[in-house]
Formats: sequence, structure tokens, C-alpha cells
Amino acid sequence: MRVTVLGAGRVGWAMVRDLAADGEFQVRAVDRSPERLERLAGVAGVERVAADLADPAEVTRAIRDADLVVGAVPGDMGFATLRTVVEAGKNIVDISFFPEDPLLLDPLARERGVTAIVDCGVAPGCDNLILGRLLDEMDRVDRFACYVGGLPVERRHPWEYKAPFSPVDVLAEYTRPARLRRGGQEISLPALAEPELLDFPGVGTLEAFLTDGLRTLLATTRVPDMVEKTLRYPGHAEKVRLLRDAGFLAAEPVELDGVLVRPIDLTARLLFPAWQFAPGEEDLTVLRVVVEGVQGGQPVRRRFDLVDRYDRASGTTSMARTTGYTCTAAARMVARGLFTRRGVSPPEVVGRDTACYEFLFAELAARGIEFRETSELLARG
Amino acid sequence: MRVTVLGAGRVGWAMVRDLAADGEFQVRAVDRSPERLERLAGVAGVERVAADLADPAEVTRAIRDADLVVGAVPGDMGFATLRTVVEAGKNIVDISFFPEDPLLLDPLARERGVTAIVDCGVAPGCDNLILGRLLDEMDRVDRFACYVGGLPVERRHPWEYKAPFSPVDVLAEYTRPARLRRGGQEISLPALAEPELLDFPGVGTLEAFLTDGLRTLLATTRVPDMVEKTLRYPGHAEKVRLLRDAGFLAAEPVELDGVLVRPIDLTARLLFPAWQFAPGEEDLTVLRVVVEGVQGGQPVRRRFDLVDRYDRASGTTSMARTTGYTCTAAARMVARGLFTRRGVSPPEVVGRDTACYEFLFAELAARGIEFRETSELLARG
Repeated sequence: MRVTVLGAGRVGWAMVRDLAADGEFQVRAVDRSPERLERLAGVAGVERVAADLADPAEVTRAIRDADLVVGAVPGDMGFATLRTVVEAGKNIVDISFFPEDPLLLDPLARERGVTAIVDCGVAPGCDNLILGRLLDEMDRVDRFACYVGGLPVERRHPWEYKAPFSPVDVLAEYTRPARLRRGGQEISLPALAEPELLDFPGVGTLEAFLTDGLRTLLATTRVPDMVEKTLRYPGHAEKVRLLRDAGFLAAEPVELDGVLVRPIDLTARLLFPAWQFAPGEEDLTVLRVVVEGVQGGQPVRRRFDLVDRYDRASGTTSMARTTGYTCTAAARMVARGLFTRRGVSPPEVVGRDTACYEFLFAELAARGIEFRETSELLARG
Repeated sequence: MRVTVLGAGRVGWAMVRDLAADGEFQVRAVDRSPERLERLAGVAGVERVAADLADPAEVTRAIRDADLVVGAVPGDMGFATLRTVVEAGKNIVDISFFPEDPLLLDPLARERGVTAIVDCGVAPGCDNLILGRLLDEMDRVDRFACYVGGLPVERRHPWEYKAPFSPVDVLAEYTRPARLRRGGQEISLPALAEPELLDFPGVGTLEAFLTDGLRTLLATTRVPDMVEKTLRYPGHAEKVRLLRDAGFLAAEPVELDGVLVRPIDLTARLLFPAWQFAPGEEDLTVLRVVVEGVQGGQPVRRRFDLVDRYDRASGTTSMARTTGYTCTAAARMVARGLFTRRGVSPPEVVGRDTACYEFLFAELAARGIEFRETSELLARG
């Protein structure tokens, strides 16, 4: 079977290697950067193709003989690329973190008879799969909370942070209002609000704050209380709030000696070098999903914890592992005909299928990505 | 006697009113801003003159018939204005906080037979007077420390700060290396370094950190340990350090979409509105001078504390009171012939004269600016 991977960045690189590892696929890696493709030289079973994926014609050409497509392009190109693939009638599993609503492409995907799984990384991704599963298993789900962060192991003043994915997307997360559901109502609160401290064994205390990460879950589920928070080392958010409150994250230009300057552009320019992982620098990924509701007539809280670390042997970042291997597991699932639903499916739809859910988490576990699952009865009010 | 006050900003305004209050002087207020002059309308005995003090010819014209000049122009015009006044052969007392070394004008002032007292505010100013006095009184001075801050009474997130004088000068204080003397050696350390917490009765705990405020004291005295620190509410300096460490205070331009932008220019643009006192907003001034040495054969520590507050009755800021009234006291001292030394005299030279020192501090006390003085014997090592 032929799989074409669009984008050979940090996560795309890890996915190409994973898909090519067992001979199940002939893999084509597509990227406009010769340097990125060069890093895949010598990986058996991989064809490397240089193409500008910002051009729909080049996307169409790159996937013309593919049986399955894996999407891992930058967020600002994600939606257009997904549409091109769906229009070409190709099945796709995507992790491009784009701002548009992927469900807008559902009618087109149904019309083309395409299976498209979107937001299929660690979060969004695994948390959606888990919620989908529990919506199926539990009598009722009352509350969903997702805490996720990708962090450097080494904590350096002043930010104690590096961006394991695009820093532009990180700043967007810090500025875009967070949509959540509370008491059945969808509301919007400022990003970085409602900080809380949480302990993670082996990692220590982290700080969680509101970000806009629920995405499709707000549209596809009716859970009355839903929240997504980002995890950072304590103190990081306060520093970002300082920048925000002082105006450094504003997108409206200010005039300086007759020149218009957007404060956020300067901020991005100053922060991004400091937020860059050094080559070989170790990262870790922390994900906690908390679901409360009723199961077997009892009020319960179920919790899923993941702490994943950089793979020194292969030099694969934890963010590439957790995001990429969720996506490649879903690609294998589609390739084997385990999931055949036509249309655009976010992972919470996939998770409702027990066999699919178990397949995906078994694939993750085989790559050392294992969730610690706990369940407790809640005292009745 | 005719006194011309150059600059009718916040401090100039208070000085004009003070000099005009008792009929001792005919006062001329000079400023290029009609609005600033308008605020002095109706003050008896004051002539208002609009002139651009950036033009030496206009300065010369404004002071042509003055018996004494008081200088209160912005720091970046201060040195040139002082030179023009000295060249015109006029005595001057100055509080323009300029970056150049005023002692460079000493030969010219001697040649012209001019008495010029510079840096004659609260700090620089009162601390220099005190050190001058103690250098005269004590057997030996081993250590001098000056802590000073102008602060808003109301503490607002995130800065808990407003700038009672030019915010450009505040940012300069936060970036220029601090020169100090330690163990007899002059050294330079980064601004904002060596934070320490100090308690001030009625104000609470403040944080002091290194700034470059010793100015003439490094040249005119041989005290082996000398340090100047700025006082802020705790936490302010850490936020400024964050900006500095992240590059927001850099003066080297960075390129943004083909345009060169100096980060500090954007920072100034964003912070200055937030650092502006609202009309009628109350400020306070805190000054502590600590001098250690030997007196009467005993090791002693002498401490001078000032906490001064906004004057609600007249709407005079504490910064204008403490800076301006030190300067007007010195103007009265020169007018009365109490201090006649030719050349450029910083206040530590004035303070060595007991009669001058006592006159100045009596004038300050008459305006409610009173230092609390304590002395303690130090245990011998």
C-alpha cells in the first residue's frame, strides 16, 4: 500500500520513519525543503519528493497514486491542503493544527467518498479518542477536562519553555480567547486565565491555564462542562500575561517614527530564538484527561495520565512521538479497513468504536506511549 | 532680585510657585509650551515667557536680565542649557538630570566667575548634601549607600509603578550599567542587579536594586564603598529584568518585514502610557542615606530617612516638592550670598559648609520635608 506523507518537519520525519519501519507501506515523503528531505536519506522504503505544498497543483501531483495520505503541514496551510486531498478523493489522516473548522469539509468528503480523520495527534487527538470511548462506556458524562503541555526538560530563566511545535501557534494559543462549556453554556474567557497547579509524578508541579483547545469537541459532544488547559512550568504564564497586559502581544500596529509596527511581530522575533529547542535537546509531553459522570449507576471520575519523554536512541522528540505515532496508528487503522466511515471524522468519533480505540492505544503502547488510567467513585453530594 | 526659571514642567511649576510665594523674587518662567505656562496664570509676581530652550539664542535672550537662573529642562537638553547660562555669566542652580558630566563645565564657570550648583534635587541632591556634611563631621567615612524612589501610592498590576519624571530617563536607568565603588575600586555592574528588601515605616517593604546614580560623587569623594540603588515596590524589577533578558530593552534595531525597529522604542511606546500619573494621582518619595565610618574614635552608622507625600492642597507631587524645593532652597542660598564658590559645585561641595547645609535643610523642613536621622554605634569586629 502506498502512503504519501505531506510535510517532513519534526513530526512528519518521525511519521515517515514509523510508517516505513515494518514494510507494510511504500512511503513517499513530500516537503519543499531539501534539507528536511535529506534527513530521511537512507531510510529504506521511502521515496523523497520536493514539492511546494502551498500550491494545490503540487499537492495533487504528489498524492496522485497514493492509497492513503498523512497530513503534517504547517497550521496556516493545513485547511487548504486537506481540502485538496479530499477533492482528489484520497483518504487522509491529518495532524496539521489549522485554525479553521475541519467539519466544514465534511459534505465534500462524503460526496467524494473519502475517509478523513483530522486533529489526530496527542491533544487534540488522544483526549478526543478517550472522551469518545467514555461517552460510549459511561451512562452519562458530566465533565471533561484536558490538560496538555510539551515542555523542555531543562528549565531556563526566564521562560522555562521551548516550543516543540511552531512558536507562532504558541503565541496564538496565548492570545486567542479560550472557548469552553460551563453549565451547558458555551462561553469564552481570556487565554491564560484560571491558573491552577497540578502535580505529575516524575515531572513535578506544573501550572495549567485556559487555552482554546477544545476545537471539534464543542461541536460534536454535549458534555455540559468542558475545558482545555495548557501546562507549563509554574511562572511561565505570569510572564506571558505581563507581556500581554503591557501590550506586547497586540496585533494592532503602533506608529514608531512614522513606521507601523505590530507589537506581536517584534515579540515573536525576540522570543522565538529563545523558545527554540537546541539540536538534541530533550523534551517531554504531559497529558491528563479527567472525565466525570455516571457509570453503572455510580458517580465516577476517570483519569488518564501520560508522561512521555524524548527518545535518545533515535533522536525523536516526545512531541513528534506522541503526535506522530497517534497519527500513524490511525493511518494503519484506515489502511487495514478498521475504520471506514466516510466524511470528516474527528478522533472522538473514532474513539466511540471499541475496536478502533483498542487498536490505536495498543499501537501507541507498542511504541512506549502508555497512559496510566485510574478510576474513583465520587462521594454523592 | 530677578530669577529666571528655565522649564515649567511638573518640577519647574512647583519651583516657580515656591520662588514667587514670599515676594523675595521677581520670577520669570520660560517654557516653549503655552499649556505649561498657562498653568502658572494668576500666580502673583510671575512673568511667563514662551521660548524654545533647545535654541541657545532663546536661552540667552530669556536670561539676559536675570540675577539668578534655575534650570529644570529635560535631561537631553540639560548640559547644553547649563553651558549657555554659564557662558552668559549667570549664576545657576540646576536640576536637569542630564547624562553628561557637569564638572566638564567647571573651567568655563570659573573663567566666567559663575556660581553653578548642579544635580540639586532630592537624589542626586539631598544625598550629596548629607555625604558632604558627614565627610566634614566624621573622622572617616568608609561606606555610603543611597536608596531612592519616586512611587505611586496606588499599586496597580503589572508594574506597580508610575514615572514621576521622564519615563525615558527611567528606562535609561534600567539599562545603563551602574557604576559604584567597592573596596576602593570603581566597578560597573548591570542595572537591576543585587536586589534587596528594605522596610520603610508607613510605606512598607520596598525593593532596592543597583542603578547608575552616584554621578559626581565618584569623582569628588574617595569613600571606598559607595553604592546607589533605586527603590520600587517588590516585583517591579523582576518584570523589567524579564523584558531586558527577553530583548525588549535592546537599542540595536531588529529587522521586521524589511523595517528596522529598535525594541526599546516599542517598549517605551507601550509602557509610557501605563507609567503616566493620572491627573491628581498621589505619589510619594522615599530616600534613605546610610553612611558608615568613624566619628569621635567610634565606629558609627548614621542613617537619614525621608518619606514625603503628595500635597493635596496645592496638587504638588512629592517628586516636585522634594526635587524642586531642594533646588529653590539652594537658589535662595545663592541669592542671599551664603554660597559664593565660583565654578561648578555639586551638592556634596555645598554640604561641607555647615551654614549652607543648615540653611537648606531648614528651608526643606519649613515645607514639610523632614529627614529622620538616626545614629548607632557599630560593634567592633
